[in-house]
Formats: sequence, C-alpha cells, structure tokens
Amino acid sequence: MLVLVLNAGSSSLKYQLVDTKTGEAIASGLVERIGIDGILKHEVGINKKLTFEIEMPTHKEAIELVLKTLTIYETKVIDSIDEIDAIGHRVVHGGENFKSSVIITEKVIKQIEELIPLAPLHNSANILGMRICQELIPGKPNVAVFDTAFHQTMPPENYLYAVPHEDYTKFKLRKYGFHGTSHSYVSKEAIKLLGNKKDTKIIVCHLGNGSSLCAVRDGKSLCTTMGLTPLEGLIMGTRCGDIDAGVIPYLMGKKNMDPHQIIDYLNKKSGILGLSGISSDLREVIKAANDGDKRAKTTIKMLCNKIKRFICSYAGLMGGVDAICFTAGIGENSDLIRENACSDLDFMGIVLDKEKNKIRSKENREISAEDSNTKIFVIPTNEELVIAQDTYKLIGKG
Amino acid sequence: MLVLVLNAGSSSLKYQLVDTKTGEAIASGLVERIGIDGILKHEVGINKKLTFEIEMPTHKEAIELVLKTLTIYETKVIDSIDEIDAIGHRVVHGGENFKSSVIITEKVIKQIEELIPLAPLHNSANILGMRICQELIPGKPNVAVFDTAFHQTMPPENYLYAVPHEDYTKFKLRKYGFHGTSHSYVSKEAIKLLGNKKDTKIIVCHLGNGSSLCAVRDGKSLCTTMGLTPLEGLIMGTRCGDIDAGVIPYLMGKKNMDPHQIIDYLNKKSGILGLSGISSDLREVIKAANDGDKRAKTTIKMLCNKIKRFICSYAGLMGGVDAICFTAGIGENSDLIRENACSDLDFMGIVLDKEKNKIRSKENREISAEDSNTKIFVIPTNEELVIAQDTYKLIGKG
Repeated sequence: MLVLVLNAGSSSLKYQLVDTKTGEAIASGLVERIGIDGILKHEVGINKKLTFEIEMPTHKEAIELVLKTLTIYETKVIDSIDEIDAIGHRVVHGGENFKSSVIITEKVIKQIEELIPLAPLHNSANILGMRICQELIPGKPNVAVFDTAFHQTMPPENYLYAVPHEDYTKFKLRKYGFHGTSHSYVSKEAIKLLGNKKDTKIIVCHLGNGSSLCAVRDGKSLCTTMGLTPLEGLIMGTRCGDIDAGVIPYLMGKKNMDPHQIIDYLNKKSGILGLSGISSDLREVIKAANDGDKRAKTTIKMLCNKIKRFICSYAGLMGGVDAICFTAGIGENSDLIRENACSDLDFMGIVLDKEKNKIRSKENREISAEDSNTKIFVIPTNEELVIAQDTYKLIGKG
Repeated sequence: MLVLVLNAGSSSLKYQLVDTKTGEAIASGLVERIGIDGILKHEVGINKKLTFEIEMPTHKEAIELVLKTLTIYETKVIDSIDEIDAIGHRVVHGGENFKSSVIITEKVIKQIEELIPLAPLHNSANILGMRICQELIPGKPNVAVFDTAFHQTMPPENYLYAVPHEDYTKFKLRKYGFHGTSHSYVSKEAIKLLGNKKDTKIIVCHLGNGSSLCAVRDGKSLCTTMGLTPLEGLIMGTRCGDIDAGVIPYLMGKKNMDPHQIIDYLNKKSGILGLSGISSDLREVIKAANDGDKRAKTTIKMLCNKIKRFICSYAGLMGGVDAICFTAGIGENSDLIRENACSDLDFMGIVLDKEKNKIRSKENREISAEDSNTKIFVIPTNEELVIAQDTYKLIGKG
C-alpha cells in the first residue's frame, strides 16, 4: 500500500511517499516559505533531486506541486495520483480526545479545530492539509496521527500542573507532551533490542531542533518533558525550555513587549540560538566551542547538563532504567552530546563506551560499556514510517 | 552579644532576640496583618506568651510594640533597648551585588532599593524595617543577611536561562535562588555529621511553606530549584513551581486576567492549595488523603515525585550524593513526605530506614539504612541563628 505522509506547518510542508510493504520511502521532500516566496526540494532515492523556487501563495499550490513531482516530472515515481492509497497526516495536538490515530471524518476535523487554541499555528495548518488532500486526491482516505497521543497514558500526577484543579477540568490546562510518534517508535525498537523483556524502564531522548525526553514504563509513556506547549523542558534550537514563569512579567517591563510577544521570543529567539548568539544549529555552536568560544562552551554544557538531569530524574521516577535511547538529529549524530549527557553516572549504573559512541552509522546500535547496568542505544527515529503504518492499520489494503 | 533578628514581610514581621554567646533565642514572635488590623504573638521560652490584637497601621507601630514587649511588659527580657547590640535583617534579594552579609550603610540601602524590581514586596519591606530600626534603636549597627547570597557561587551554566545573552547582561535576568541562609546552615551541619569529610556532595531539601532544593558541592551552592523569583521549582503551599511558560498567555485568555494577575494567581492560589482544594497546609491535606480524598492523594504523590526527581537530578549533576538533608516545617516533621521522596532509589544507593524515619525529635538525626551509600539526615534549620552569627561576625563584640 502507498501512503502519502504529510506534515503541514504554518509555512512549510514535509512529505514522504511510503510503501508500507517494504517500509521504504519512495520519494520525499520539503516545501518551505509557503505564502512568502516558496521553495520545494524533492528527492527520489539518493540520485534524483529536484528543486523549485516558485511562488506558492497557499498550501494548495504547494500540494499541487508535490503531486506533480510524484506523477509527472522526471522525478515521477507513480503514474497517477490514483496509485496513492491513503494520506497520513501528522497532527500536532490531539488534546485529551485522541489517544490513538483515527480516520479523518468531518467530526474529527471539528474536534481538531476545537483544539486550535492549544496549538494555534500547527493545528490550523494540519486541518488545511486535510482539506486540500480531500479536494486534490478525492475519494482516498485520510488518517490523522497525533503527536500527543502516545502520552495520553501518563497518570494524573505526571500530567497535572500545580494550579487550581478547575483549570484542568474547565480549561484542559495540563501537560500533553509532543514527539509521541518518535517516542513510541524508538521505545518499541528498544524493547526489541532488550530481547522483548517484560516490565521495561526506558528513557527516550529525542534531541532535534525541538527536543523532549520521555520516560516509557512497560511500553507506555509515563512522563515527558514538553508540556501544555512545546516550550517546556529541554533547551532547544530556539526554545528556552524550563524557565521561571516570573520571567514573563519581568521581561515585559524590561523589553516593552506584551506576553504573547514574550512567549514568541522564548520560542523563536532563545534556546541554543539565544545563549550562544551564533546559531540554532548545534553543529555550528560545537564548531565555535572547539575554536574556543566561551559562550558556545557554556551553551553546550547547559544543554548536556539538562539532558543528564532529566535522565536521572526519570530514572528516579521509575526506580531505575533498563535503557537510555538517543534519537533525532542531535541524538543520532552528536557523540559529544551523548558522551556528556551520560558522564559521571556510574554511581547509578550508567556507563557509556566512549569508543562505541564515536562510531557513526544509520543503524540501531548499542553504545554502553560492558559493565553498565543500563543499556545505552542510538536508535534512528522514523516518524513517517509510524504514520504510514498507522494509516495502513486503519485503512487496510487499498 | 544580643542581636535582634528581623524578618520584615509586606504585612508581617518575624523577630527573635538572640544571644550569640549561647546561640539561644531569648524571646521571639510574629506580627501579622500590619496595615490591616494587627496581631502580635510574642513568646519567651516555653512559658511566657503574650498576644496583642491592636491596630498597627505601619511597620513602625509594629516594631515599637515589639520593643515594648522586650523591655516593658510582663514578658520583658531586657531593661532597655540599649542592651540590643545590633540588628540583623533578613533581606530577600541581594541580586549579584551581595555575595555575603554586609553592614548596612546608605549605599547598601540604595543598592537594595535598586533590586526592588526583582522582589517588589520583599525588598521594600526589608528597607522599611532598616529605616525604622535606625530611628527607634538609634546608634546601633544594622546588618543585612541575604537570602540569595549563598547561591552566588553557582556557575554560569547553572544560573543562566536559555534566553538571549543580552537579557542577562542588560537586565540581570538569571536564576538567583532563595533560602540561602537555611541551605548554608543545614549543609554546614551535614558536613559536620559526615565527619568534616572533604569534597562533599550534599543535597538540602528545604521544605516549608516555600520550598527549594539545593545541590551543595564542597560547601558551596552549585544549583538550586528557585529561580529569578521564588515561583520556580518545587510544588509549594500556594506556589505552582515549575510550569510551562506557555501557560500564561493560555490562562490570560481563559481567565481574563493580565500577566501580573496570572503570576499572582500562580504564587498565591496554586501549589498544594490549588491542587488539593483543601489547604496550603500539608498536614490538612495528608489528613484528607488518609480519609480517602483522591485529589489530596494525587497532591501528595505529585509533591513527593517532584522532590524525588530533583534529588536524582542533583545527584546526577554532582556525579553522586554523600548526604540528603531534610529541613524546615515539612522536611523536619513529615516522615510520610521523606519516605516517599526517597522510595525506590536503592538502584542509586539511596535507602531510607523506615523506622528511624518515624522517630520524632528536635535534634539533628540520621534516617538512612545501614546499607545506604548516601546518608539521609533530618537537620532542623535555624536561619535566625545564622543571621545573628553573621551580625556578630561583622560587628564584633558591642
């Protein structure tokens, strides 16, 4: 079965055409700057690449162009859009309604619409993507896969904030968590690597441009670092992560901004970018640190300390940890971050093998030392595959 | 030497008359509801008590009454205010200027004034207390002891937030931490109990109506849970502790409040009070939980999990922990909280002795099991003694 996997952002669109039989992506790409100017980068395998720089006023023109690159141009991989059996949409916020993936109906779209206040930019874009697919690929089923769904198993003591209880019952103010598709995929892979052991205690470190940790107990999300919004938790590319809420009125006065502007500032100008003053891309910051830049060094130290502290915090919450898994851009590729995040934890049975840690590979691999009680793995994530598989499971063979 | 120790709040005043030779409090008391109606409760030893309910429009009338209870009424312990050698003031926010206690001069008062934006209610009240003492107890030296000073040893990676660096350099936006006097006192006691061992790794859990944890490395504060303001960190009597900053714009819309009102709400209506809907007093919540109240049970679970998670987080940061110390109202008195905060941590060498933990006492005591790598202590705090001793050190014998 062929599933078109779509991840629509406010001005971007990531896509993959996945063959669920092999699990392979036949083609993939990214559209950016929709509504600004418009850039599409398309790839088939490792040989064929196509780049468009062409005005795309809305997501509709973007998806039309994606469909043409799949069916018409030199990059074509199918003869007609009719060969697409279904579309799987990544949806950021499923609130408390969606505990797993669902086939998209009018009722589902309405429910996702109702959750817009919880993820204004994301959920609106996701709905737009669904509507356009219904129009441009008529008659084919659409499935929604939620970033929050995996975390719906968290118990109240881990999802409630310490605010008056009515704020939860009336306004659904609580921790939701994100990156659920990735945490789910990686923890399942880890359980396999642990020989399908029962009663597993796993910590997944999803470290990308956005980052979150998840404590996975017996295959279920027990706690995660992101909260009501993706601002909470770790230090990220441009997000500050955990911060004293008292910072907001303080900065409002100092910077003459309203609270929405401050939150935007904490989301887009802070994190690695703000701390280092160099880039939101950790690779550039590591380079600067190697060249002796002091702020870059402090940024890396803060990032690693924070990951380490959450690893220990979640190990404590579970009463131990069988496996720590690193995934996503930074998690899969930065041996420096992994080494520092796991350093000096032998007192709790966590020992990294520095040499194994340095080996680069696209495969699942173990990087813990022989005498480590806790296994440490690098597991490349594959959110698109999960979305395609979930779509397949719900739709059956087309 | 006799030191009058004053802790002036916005509508309250705690005081003790301390004999620095014996370290004993000769008399102590609390004035509340200043500017509202006015209540003074005064104690001498365990026998003599005095209560006034009388209008006190300002802190001046309050301090006048305190001086009378010390020198004139049946509760008198000295013949004249002239026997007071010095006054030690607890000051909440010392910013980055004050790394230790200082004798109060006009310049010092001006510097404390400049820090008012960082602690609006507290620092204003503290200055008021100093001015009134200069007037009512003329010619006697005043000393300021800062709640933030002990934490000034934190390294940048632990006090910076992940925001643009200019916010720190220009606006001094950073983590300051509070309860420094208590963390300092308790960690020093712990080092004694560890036989004056070198290279110590200590975690102090100050759990009162306000609560914070501190990682103390070699006698110096390495990191603490409170931040720019005392809102950050643990769940407290009425404070929410750590929360997604994205909660603020979300709640503003839902509750029709401005950001200052939201912060006030997170400071005064949240925490144990908000979660339980019962009281900010943990004892009442524990009682309700014992009677089967579900929300009370969740509140306690959240509180203990949070303490446990920070203990593990700080143990990780230090690469192990020699001693965990519990102090302040809850820390000294609640065996339930101590037991749950330390449960299931044997994987990292932390084992509590449940029987020892149940013994009630006013003395320093060890409550860890024989086979625990980490010592667990209960150490009653004594902030007033530290203030009196610091005053003595700076003033010398009067």
